[in-house]
Amino acid sequence: MFSPVYTDRVLDPAFTNWKDLYALDSVEVHRAHLLGLLEAGIVSRDKALALAGAMDQMDADFQAPAAIPPGVEDLYFLYEGELGRRLGPETAAWLHTARSRNDMDGTIFRLALRRALLVLAWEVQDLLGALLERSRASGGVLTVLYTHGQPANVSTLGHYLSAFAGEVAADLEDLLAGMASVNLSTMGACAITGTGFPLRRERVAVLLGFPGFVANTYEAISSSHWLTRPCSALEALLQDYTRLAADLLHKASCEVGLITFPDSLVQVSSIMPQKRNPVIIEHLRIQAGLGLGSCACLRNLWHSAPYQDVNEAADAPVSILIDSLGMASSATALLKEIVLNIGGDEARAREIALGFGVTTTELADTLVRECGLGFRSAHEISSRFVRSGRDLGALRAAFLEIAGRELPFSDAQIEAILAPERFVEVRKLPGGPAAEGMAAVYEALEARRSRIGQALGEIEARMAAGAAELARAWKALSSQAPGPARADREGQGK
Amino acid sequence: MFSPVYTDRVLDPAFTNWKDLYALDSVEVHRAHLLGLLEAGIVSRDKALALAGAMDQMDADFQAPAAIPPGVEDLYFLYEGELGRRLGPETAAWLHTARSRNDMDGTIFRLALRRALLVLAWEVQDLLGALLERSRASGGVLTVLYTHGQPANVSTLGHYLSAFAGEVAADLEDLLAGMASVNLSTMGACAITGTGFPLRRERVAVLLGFPGFVANTYEAISSSHWLTRPCSALEALLQDYTRLAADLLHKASCEVGLITFPDSLVQVSSIMPQKRNPVIIEHLRIQAGLGLGSCACLRNLWHSAPYQDVNEAADAPVSILIDSLGMASSATALLKEIVLNIGGDEARAREIALGFGVTTTELADTLVRECGLGFRSAHEISSRFVRSGRDLGALRAAFLEIAGRELPFSDAQIEAILAPERFVEVRKLPGGPAAEGMAAVYEALEARRSRIGQALGEIEARMAAGAAELARAWKALSSQAPGPARADREGQGK
Amino acid sequence: MFSPVYTDRVLDPAFTNWKDLYALDSVEVHRAHLLGLLEAGIVSRDKALALAGAMDQMDADFQAPAAIPPGVEDLYFLYEGELGRRLGPETAAWLHTARSRNDMDGTIFRLALRRALLVLAWEVQDLLGALLERSRASGGVLTVLYTHGQPANVSTLGHYLSAFAGEVAADLEDLLAGMASVNLSTMGACAITGTGFPLRRERVAVLLGFPGFVANTYEAISSSHWLTRPCSALEALLQDYTRLAADLLHKASCEVGLITFPDSLVQVSSIMPQKRNPVIIEHLRIQAGLGLGSCACLRNLWHSAPYQDVNEAADAPVSILIDSLGMASSATALLKEIVLNIGGDEARAREIALGFGVTTTELADTLVRECGLGFRSAHEISSRFVRSGRDLGALRAAFLEIAGRELPFSDAQIEAILAPERFVEVRKLPGGPAAEGMAAVYEALEARRSRIGQALGEIEARMAAGAAELARAWKALSSQAPGPARADREGQGK
Amino acid sequence: MFSPVYTDRVLDPAFTNWKDLYALDSVEVHRAHLLGLLEAGIVSRDKALALAGAMDQMDADFQAPAAIPPGVEDLYFLYEGELGRRLGPETAAWLHTARSRNDMDGTIFRLALRRALLVLAWEVQDLLGALLERSRASGGVLTVLYTHGQPANVSTLGHYLSAFAGEVAADLEDLLAGMASVNLSTMGACAITGTGFPLRRERVAVLLGFPGFVANTYEAISSSHWLTRPCSALEALLQDYTRLAADLLHKASCEVGLITFPDSLVQVSSIMPQKRNPVIIEHLRIQAGLGLGSCACLRNLWHSAPYQDVNEAADAPVSILIDSLGMASSATALLKEIVLNIGGDEARAREIALGFGVTTTELADTLVRECGLGFRSAHEISSRFVRSGRDLGALRAAFLEIAGRELPFSDAQIEAILAPERFVEVRKLPGGPAAEGMAAVYEALEARRSRIGQALGEIEARMAAGAAELARAWKALSSQAPGPARADREGQGK
Repeated sequence: MFSPVYTDRVLDPAFTNWKDLYALDSVEVHRAHLLGLLEAGIVSRDKALALAGAMDQMDADFQAPAAIPPGVEDLYFLYEGELGRRLGPETAAWLHTARSRNDMDGTIFRLALRRALLVLAWEVQDLLGALLERSRASGGVLTVLYTHGQPANVSTLGHYLSAFAGEVAADLEDLLAGMASVNLSTMGACAITGTGFPLRRERVAVLLGFPGFVANTYEAISSSHWLTRPCSALEALLQDYTRLAADLLHKASCEVGLITFPDSLVQVSSIMPQKRNPVIIEHLRIQAGLGLGSCACLRNLWHSAPYQDVNEAADAPVSILIDSLGMASSATALLKEIVLNIGGDEARAREIALGFGVTTTELADTLVRECGLGFRSAHEISSRFVRSGRDLGALRAAFLEIAGRELPFSDAQIEAILAPERFVEVRKLPGGPAAEGMAAVYEALEARRSRIGQALGEIEARMAAGAAELARAWKALSSQAPGPARADREGQGK
Repeated sequence: MFSPVYTDRVLDPAFTNWKDLYALDSVEVHRAHLLGLLEAGIVSRDKALALAGAMDQMDADFQAPAAIPPGVEDLYFLYEGELGRRLGPETAAWLHTARSRNDMDGTIFRLALRRALLVLAWEVQDLLGALLERSRASGGVLTVLYTHGQPANVSTLGHYLSAFAGEVAADLEDLLAGMASVNLSTMGACAITGTGFPLRRERVAVLLGFPGFVANTYEAISSSHWLTRPCSALEALLQDYTRLAADLLHKASCEVGLITFPDSLVQVSSIMPQKRNPVIIEHLRIQAGLGLGSCACLRNLWHSAPYQDVNEAADAPVSILIDSLGMASSATALLKEIVLNIGGDEARAREIALGFGVTTTELADTLVRECGLGFRSAHEISSRFVRSGRDLGALRAAFLEIAGRELPFSDAQIEAILAPERFVEVRKLPGGPAAEGMAAVYEALEARRSRIGQALGEIEARMAAGAAELARAWKALSSQAPGPARADREGQGK
Repeated sequence: MFSPVYTDRVLDPAFTNWKDLYALDSVEVHRAHLLGLLEAGIVSRDKALALAGAMDQMDADFQAPAAIPPGVEDLYFLYEGELGRRLGPETAAWLHTARSRNDMDGTIFRLALRRALLVLAWEVQDLLGALLERSRASGGVLTVLYTHGQPANVSTLGHYLSAFAGEVAADLEDLLAGMASVNLSTMGACAITGTGFPLRRERVAVLLGFPGFVANTYEAISSSHWLTRPCSALEALLQDYTRLAADLLHKASCEVGLITFPDSLVQVSSIMPQKRNPVIIEHLRIQAGLGLGSCACLRNLWHSAPYQDVNEAADAPVSILIDSLGMASSATALLKEIVLNIGGDEARAREIALGFGVTTTELADTLVRECGLGFRSAHEISSRFVRSGRDLGALRAAFLEIAGRELPFSDAQIEAILAPERFVEVRKLPGGPAAEGMAAVYEALEARRSRIGQALGEIEARMAAGAAELARAWKALSSQAPGPARADREGQGK
Repeated sequence: MFSPVYTDRVLDPAFTNWKDLYALDSVEVHRAHLLGLLEAGIVSRDKALALAGAMDQMDADFQAPAAIPPGVEDLYFLYEGELGRRLGPETAAWLHTARSRNDMDGTIFRLALRRALLVLAWEVQDLLGALLERSRASGGVLTVLYTHGQPANVSTLGHYLSAFAGEVAADLEDLLAGMASVNLSTMGACAITGTGFPLRRERVAVLLGFPGFVANTYEAISSSHWLTRPCSALEALLQDYTRLAADLLHKASCEVGLITFPDSLVQVSSIMPQKRNPVIIEHLRIQAGLGLGSCACLRNLWHSAPYQDVNEAADAPVSILIDSLGMASSATALLKEIVLNIGGDEARAREIALGFGVTTTELADTLVRECGLGFRSAHEISSRFVRSGRDLGALRAAFLEIAGRELPFSDAQIEAILAPERFVEVRKLPGGPAAEGMAAVYEALEARRSRIGQALGEIEARMAAGAAELARAWKALSSQAPGPARADREGQGK
């Protein structure tokens, strides 16, 4: 009998995790394994029929108790025990032939994690879509972009949002790469060295919708990658969120005011009537921080964990990862809500651009391009213009002194050169904010987004095909299972 | 004039970093950029010739001072200042037309980091080779493998080492993916929005051996991925090292003794004559821990760093990452040394296997396979055998009681069933330790290793082609550069 | 009206946290604040009586809904809204005079966190007691202690456990220091600059059982220390647990066998009948790792969070910290269960000590002490003895050769010198394993434990005194509250 | 002979670390240990004299080679080998009697770390002094303080800086607590169980300036606290720096402009003439991030490191910690430079305060205090005033409607109520920004600072006393050391 402390602190929480998160996937794995045993001739058809019948019956009428019963180690032993009560332990135990809890649990966890990762991946894909849509829609909305916290260049909201879309696309591609390490069966690895029974590992993998299985049986059980790899991808994604949050906080602050928020995303102060806090940005930062910190915690669990089968790959950490995905979902939802609702204040952009001399960079460039000055001379002339408080006379004087001739532009021409619109229009290089520059950006991002969607779709298609084949094969078996169990089942129209 | 504290704590350390780590790459970038300006018609041929001449001259005779000169901000300003002294500031400044330190520094850092990552990647590729070679060579060396710290199954050293090879292969593939985010030019992004000058961004990328450039100019400057993505790959690799170290420490401990170390890797105690510490494993753990912790530190720098151009992407963090790669190299060298030198003690493996009843799993399986027992009955019979102190009489009695008939094996047959060799031989499933099981593992690993080598080779081939084209184009320009500069240069036989 | 996404992802989870974790503490703070307002003459007695009556009534009959009602921002607004329905908004709002949600929430969180930290602190204090008790009880139980994974010295289980007790004592003292930053009121800081109302900050602190308040009002609201400081203390404690777990895993492994575990802490394998896994040690490692990783996550939330009032100090992170304390509790319970149940196998200790020549260190020391040899000569003689397979003839020959005379010990004397017991007996220095050496260790640890208990007791005594005074003062007020409210309340026998 | 890889990657880097960082402290420890051995009667006076003479000689004329000589394990073996060449190995080895490299190295590392920590602690103490001085000096400089990124209250620069001073004071107190775990001798712990020789552990501790020694000999060698505890204190300090940096970046941004920077701390842009980047704040953030990340790395090294003597407590990690202290020093210097040089722009503060209606909180409070309104009514009236664009007519209308009577203030009175100065003046509660409120803050901070200085002074006084006593005792011994050694030494006037 286990110690009460051990039961209370380890076995019972695990039992609860299993019931809540892994029970349904367990049944799928039991079915696929039994079909595999039958097809490989390891279990006789009679035993398989008996097992299938009882398993269906248990699906219909077996309820695990609230707390783990005394002396039971885990949900699987409870399940097998109940099977044993129905079929006799001898027959019941055939279900566990040629497998161990190691490979079984690993595969169950991967099924649950794959499903949770798919949910998140599609949400991030939606975010990417929102970013792209809003980028295109605000491709012409002037804004000011910053370096080191200072206004640096005029650009467009579309340029800015699509830059971040590029980050999210990369993070999502990385998440897909991480999912590949999850999307593999471990069945057949048994404890760590496989088995002498002639299993067909890839058949079970197919039935469970996996594109393959981890070949080396020791690696299948001992690896941390299926847990740690998605974590590092998530951390990268969520850390990018914290960066955007930090930048948006500045842009949305009332003194800067480049980004506007609708009332629906603003909280008031209970004692400061003038405040309009877009605290949603803070909550984005916090939820991203909580999600990424939780992933970092899970990765760090493996620091110096012996390269063996260890319980770091068991229900407690896996369940926390599934929770972390929920936190990542929430942060993603907040960010999408922000992206869909923020606006750009062009008037304020103009004001900052002109007030802080942002467009004088373009004046300097124009002096180089059109007056044949060197870059430093042009820079010096522009600097004097800024220092003079943007006095045209000072500009002309500086040009005369440094270039040795009159500035060949009228006041109107100078104003046009300094116009924020022009700053954007001339930046036509690939990746620059002008429409010509953005075309390639949008095209590339759409292509990436489409490839991501396709890859996610392929994972799901394989899952669906596996599920269909498993259902078909199971039905073929279980429809011939004996006696009352069948009747009950059909009676319930299941 | 900058404050002395700022100079001392920021500018001067940066100056030193630049001189030590980035000076040579800077020259490559200057050359590629100047050629780009010339080819795009932005800089006149005369000015380009003058610049090329002076730049060559400076390569030959310019020495940056030990400490940053007062009032100078960084190595680039010093360089341009010196160019200005030679050509006049007006001409000198043309070199910096249509670029900013933002895109220039980003590209220089990526060149340095790409080179350092390639060194490490090849070292890990060598480690992978060593693991594979040693796996194959010890494919038949019996050992005991553990789960949760307890002897679980008999297997082979080759099975174990090739499992870890699978981890390293995945980590290395991930590192390659991370390198892709480094291997992109940022030139043409200028400060953050590109420029109105008609640069040809991809030409400069080609000259610097990049397969492409970061399109969105804001993303090019603001992204952390080229620093953080390699870090997360490195962390995964090094954390796997800590796991192997923890397992090897146990296997090599004198009480376990499954893994042997040569004298050349063992330190003695100054006061405990009996001790033979394979402390190299500890140093592997520590160096891996230091390397991964340093990467984690660098990634975490970006937490809530505004999504802008920030100095987290400047010389201090990049230089620390390059140092961390050195630590990763050192850990990789230690691990390779271990892999190449450890041996397996088969006698001890046998002793543990039989002494702790490891092979009784196989007895149970055989009872199922050959006597038609259920798994639980077979398990119960085997358990009683173990609890009896491996008494054959007890085994026969248990079989009789549970199966209701005599055990149909002679004593010799039982011994054969329990033989460690047999435990391995029957495990022929793909990925199991028998030769049949390992074939697919080796094949897959060799294929992955070959693909990795190919990918690394492609990166290097593109670098070499770019370098050749850059040298050719530069020579075509600089060989026509004017006057004394040329003469000097030729005089020095350069 | 808030956006549904914001409500769903931020407001509603916060509402749930508040109802579950902070509702009771909120009432205490409301009471203390109202008494403070009344005593300071800020709120009139009439209004205070009305408020007290309605607040008591709400305690008795007000139930917050399951989900946050539309348009409500948080539980406090709901509470005040309901008060307003009962008393009119004008009267209700007096409760929030001279305070903000900032100082109010801060104090409520600190109350909840203080309580949770006290629970954990007492549990760790119990663990420390268990360590001490078991140390004393096994002060004479021989064991072997290791350095760098190799058997190094003979010692006692008491020496070993009391060393770890020293770590826990230090960690607990550190946790107490961290609790001091929690155990301060923020009331009166209002938003960030206090108020013009003549509050008496220390009176409210006393009523809530705090020894003081954070003076600087901006610091009171902006500081992270009350959250991060306990986290770092917890991380240290839990990391020490991972270290002990790693060492115990080795000592308890079947090949080493120095530490024994009762059946109640061992799990069996479903397919490996021979296995007896003390996986409780693994779960200790994992739970400690999860707890410390969660704390690290919370600390890291503050990285570059502006030094302002931020929501990192709000319900989501605080609630996660309270959860982490639960994980720390669980790990502490597992460790205590281990400490109380493990045994030492003295026969195995003797076997290892003699088999691996552990006691030859003592032979070398004896040659120095009693034969006047230098340390290196003695070491060399001992080494030859070990290398000879512990052959007494070889020992005598080595002594003769190196010391130039006969070894002045009989065989029996040599055996006595090498006896594990003697190894311990002679180590009488303060802190050594002999009884004389341990006396000072136990004394110091008991004194520390007693001081810790006293400090915890003082915190609780101040809490109890505050609670009593608050109850007294509140009753004095509320017993005179007007009308139906009173009647209802008395009718319910509250 | 060690493997070249091991020599190259482990032994030689360690040798370099030892020569650079620990050589001088080694000599102190050798001296104190020898004196201890002599005083305890373990080493004869003759041998001690010989050793002392040769050790002095070696101080004068022994140079360790650049690289570790083949076959040598570390600097200590080299030292003892050289002693042996001068005195014969037999005599030389007496120096290492009753000690091990474990306790010796531990004490040496603690000496080096103590010194480095003291340097940093005094620098932080200076920063605290600068914060206090600047707080007092700018106690009357109006500024606006923020919550959640929005202007919230008027306050003073002194209030703000002294809040941060409170954080630094707490961090420094924590660092002092961490230093206590460093400031203990490990001598006498030998390998892990002490020794049978009658050492006097506390005498050696006194000679080395320690207030005590780690009693339990196993704990003395196995504990991580002397490394991890200072790390966690440093992380807290440096994380607070990142928070101030984030807030200052906002306050110093050109749109906000509340904090001004002198030209000496501002960098220009090479292509954006209008930019004035106070990038020193970014470098503060980065250096703090690098320092704290490095400490986190070092702490995390210990995750699951067996609770034994491990090389995590050896030269590589200790040396990195000493480097991290250098990074912390640098960040501290940058922050001090910022604190000493920033200014507050009161005109801008007024503009923001009035423009964003910051002081209307005070209007609401005044309506409560002086017109007997409830808090919500006052808040509603103020809100309408803000929404009207601060129209006095709207204010009067709102008051009339809600309060049912005329607002009893003249326009001038209203203006006075809304004046930023008044907002500060009325906040006289302890810890509020008015002079009355700040008095207690300054007093408490000065007292803490004084206590910190005293504690640091006591550590240094004990070090000085130990050094004096060690020098005295050593001179008493070494002045009687025999022959040529002495002569040489005196000849060199050493």
